Amino acid sequence: MNTTAGRHRLKARRLGLDTHAEAVILLDRDSPVCRAEGFAAHGRVLLTAGDRFVIATLYKTIGGLVAAGEAALSEAAWQRLALHDGAEVEISHPDPLASMSLVRARVYGHALAGNSFDAIVRDIAEGRYSNLEIAAFLTACAARPLSSDEVLSLTRAMVDAGDRLAWDRDIVVDKHSVGGLPGNRTTPLVVSIVTALGLTMPKTSSRAITSPAGTADTMEVLAPVALDPQTIHRVVEQEGGCIAWGGAVRLSPADDILIRIERALDIDTEGQMIASVLSKKIAAGATHLVLDMPVGPTAKVRSQAAADALSRGLIHVAEAFGIKAHVLLGDGSQPIGRGIGPVLEARDILAVLQNKPDAPADLCHRAAELAGVLLELSGRAGVGQGLALATATIADGSAWNKFQRICLAQGGMREPKIASYRKEILAHASGQLTSIDNRKLAKLAKLAGAPEAKAAGLELHHRLVDQVHAGEPLCTLYAEAPGELDYALNYAEAQKDIFGITA
Amino acid sequence: MNTTAGRHRLKARRLGLDTHAEAVILLDRDSPVCRAEGFAAHGRVLLTAGDRFVIATLYKTIGGLVAAGEAALSEAAWQRLALHDGAEVEISHPDPLASMSLVRARVYGHALAGNSFDAIVRDIAEGRYSNLEIAAFLTACAARPLSSDEVLSLTRAMVDAGDRLAWDRDIVVDKHSVGGLPGNRTTPLVVSIVTALGLTMPKTSSRAITSPAGTADTMEVLAPVALDPQTIHRVVEQEGGCIAWGGAVRLSPADDILIRIERALDIDTEGQMIASVLSKKIAAGATHLVLDMPVGPTAKVRSQAAADALSRGLIHVAEAFGIKAHVLLGDGSQPIGRGIGPVLEARDILAVLQNKPDAPADLCHRAAELAGVLLELSGRAGVGQGLALATATIADGSAWNKFQRICLAQGGMREPKIASYRKEILAHASGQLTSIDNRKLAKLAKLAGAPEAKAAGLELHHRLVDQVHAGEPLCTLYAEAPGELDYALNYAEAQKDIFGITA
Repeated sequence: MNTTAGRHRLKARRLGLDTHAEAVILLDRDSPVCRAEGFAAHGRVLLTAGDRFVIATLYKTIGGLVAAGEAALSEAAWQRLALHDGAEVEISHPDPLASMSLVRARVYGHALAGNSFDAIVRDIAEGRYSNLEIAAFLTACAARPLSSDEVLSLTRAMVDAGDRLAWDRDIVVDKHSVGGLPGNRTTPLVVSIVTALGLTMPKTSSRAITSPAGTADTMEVLAPVALDPQTIHRVVEQEGGCIAWGGAVRLSPADDILIRIERALDIDTEGQMIASVLSKKIAAGATHLVLDMPVGPTAKVRSQAAADALSRGLIHVAEAFGIKAHVLLGDGSQPIGRGIGPVLEARDILAVLQNKPDAPADLCHRAAELAGVLLELSGRAGVGQGLALATATIADGSAWNKFQRICLAQGGMREPKIASYRKEILAHASGQLTSIDNRKLAKLAKLAGAPEAKAAGLELHHRLVDQVHAGEPLCTLYAEAPGELDYALNYAEAQKDIFGITA
Repeated sequence: MNTTAGRHRLKARRLGLDTHAEAVILLDRDSPVCRAEGFAAHGRVLLTAGDRFVIATLYKTIGGLVAAGEAALSEAAWQRLALHDGAEVEISHPDPLASMSLVRARVYGHALAGNSFDAIVRDIAEGRYSNLEIAAFLTACAARPLSSDEVLSLTRAMVDAGDRLAWDRDIVVDKHSVGGLPGNRTTPLVVSIVTALGLTMPKTSSRAITSPAGTADTMEVLAPVALDPQTIHRVVEQEGGCIAWGGAVRLSPADDILIRIERALDIDTEGQMIASVLSKKIAAGATHLVLDMPVGPTAKVRSQAAADALSRGLIHVAEAFGIKAHVLLGDGSQPIGRGIGPVLEARDILAVLQNKPDAPADLCHRAAELAGVLLELSGRAGVGQGLALATATIADGSAWNKFQRICLAQGGMREPKIASYRKEILAHASGQLTSIDNRKLAKLAKLAGAPEAKAAGLELHHRLVDQVHAGEPLCTLYAEAPGELDYALNYAEAQKDIFGITA
């Protein structure tokens, strides 16, 4: 160990520890560096290697797991520092995290100015926040909802903390769905339709936050989605559109970090959601945007009043950034499509594009509606003519043709794998299927392993307001591991009200 | 590995990893148990060994750090399961944490009923919450302050989740200080005074949350404080009182877990504070209670209005549990005593008890005032005569005699060690010392290493409104490590307004 003025050189050791985005370092408790610097357990330390740095959470070890001159690093720390075996890292006390005092002020009820969000979001994007501190920030923004000005500031801060895509076109369309409805995987369809008709739609999507699948999770089943900016530009240049994961291009990178913690806490807030959605769209260079908003008793948006408030918030922020946006409300009382989970949703998409007789008609219709809004917003279709044009583009096979070309351009189309374990859930009574609990259904699919287990999830066999008979299958559960199948089945057993049957 | 119905037996390995209260397990990502059960990284798993269990956060490893049939455990997990080398643990999916949905409801603005707090606090006390989930709970209770009813419910839940001490006496006195003022270490003095006069005061104290020292941290410098209930009973039986750490007796054990996260986040809330303070007092069997509340611009309580509100909250809850409580407001414009940090505060206490000529008079006076309230509340002194009686008990040496007997009964008196590194901070101008920033002073002492480094902290050489000369020492910083001394000095350099000098 080589020491100069509070900075210590240690030999880096790759621990092979997956801690998600949080950088973690393990040091021997009795090592000279711990003693001399008085680093606190659970405290934050600054690690530097060459011109790279990371703030890491320190755990202390006893009993020799880590040697005295050694810094054992989690994968996140190792990769952020771009280390190689035998490399050295410098460890020191970081500057106090000034922006955390702004978070504390927010907790105690003070509104934050624009530059406060800049400071917080920049620090988050640079990995200076611990997961605990991010949890406090998110919870504070949930418990004391962000004001209109704060949402604007947060959005701008999130855009500024990342890269931006630029397109040499006047019109660049985009689409987002305000989740809460399982299935509803319209994005690959919308992109295929509008790009087949000549519009530009460089779509970047998130992975799931609290749902059983995000568009990126589902699309990954069919083609590579982790595209760098160069590849995205090439695909869009060539095909007019793409269906890529946003995280690989550093568009609003703070969002990807926040999403991890939101997922762990299962906390999702309106202001945070607006900033998350629109920061990605702004950074992606969108000029025209359709927002899909299902409304229903167990969807994310539960009432017309809530839909109106959220729509106003989204459109206010979109307009402030020069984006022409339209919110399309929809029926949120049940899932759209049959599949829930990446592979099962991908199969629905293929069935629609291929005009298969058993393709889910609701999914096809919703995608055509959304594409229709973009066609009209952008002037590609006359007012009132978007839906028909979009529907025809699926029916004549040109959307399917375009989808295959996009997959090919993104790296080649893939065959979805099928889950090894499955089990039907049967109706416990005869009667009319009068309600479906979207949240519990989503939870069921998650317990079965979605989205991490791509083939896991469930497939619905009935829609509202079908007549069903006791003992008839309502849905089939899919899992990649027997333990997960059992776990989901136990939950389904305990929750008799996922499906409401009225005699 | 032996598998039956979703439970897997693994060989436990003690990793020697200090993660504070959070149980952590490391599993090989590619091991059969991970694949078969589909455990998610960062997810929560149930570990059982015999009749003990713990919910642990799972981290996955790659590259062989952990072998396939092995469960590598943090110290918290190892100790909670009371394992020995070669022991086996069973791992399975835990039941979904139902009470976390109550926390989420609280985040979104719903008040919690009494039994909701019972469920949350019981789960926290049993280690079912991850640190992230605790951070969300605490932040939600900070951002949307707890109602009067909620504070009552939380307090009761915290009492019920732990053990209670019972005393065969009609009057059991207790004392608490609403922190924010560095130094102010009156508790050991108050206990010595009132027990010397025949009252019963079985005092349990916390360690520091966000301050440079808690009473338990300071007292530990002078005698053992981690006493089990049997020892506490013996000491109190023998001497009428004790000065013990509350954490070792499972009085309000959830509080000790919450405190760890509050400390990491530096977030402290009124309702949480009332529940934290009073749950310990109720569980400790107190009947009469004095609350020390310093008020000042940089103390925890900053205005008369805030003091009134907090006093009402404390007295309301205390009365609901049959405790006669009195709040004694005090000057919170500057620290009480000279030392800040465990050892330095302990030296002040000894100086007062030994009636040394250089003993800090403010500390002596404040302790006598607080003891006086207890003497009057309990009827041991007439109205208006408590202060004089308390002062006389210090002056005649009987408090010092009693303190030594208590230390002896707790396991023997210790000699405080002195810090190896020190540096004076000099006045940058001549004039009158007109302000001291308690928060920045506390931070300075913490950066110097307090309270983990017992001898670290600082000693004040001046009080308001002394005349000082440029270049004269205002305080001396103490540290146990050169890095910490430098770190604190850098902060002092950057923060010129810790001491306000008016020409």
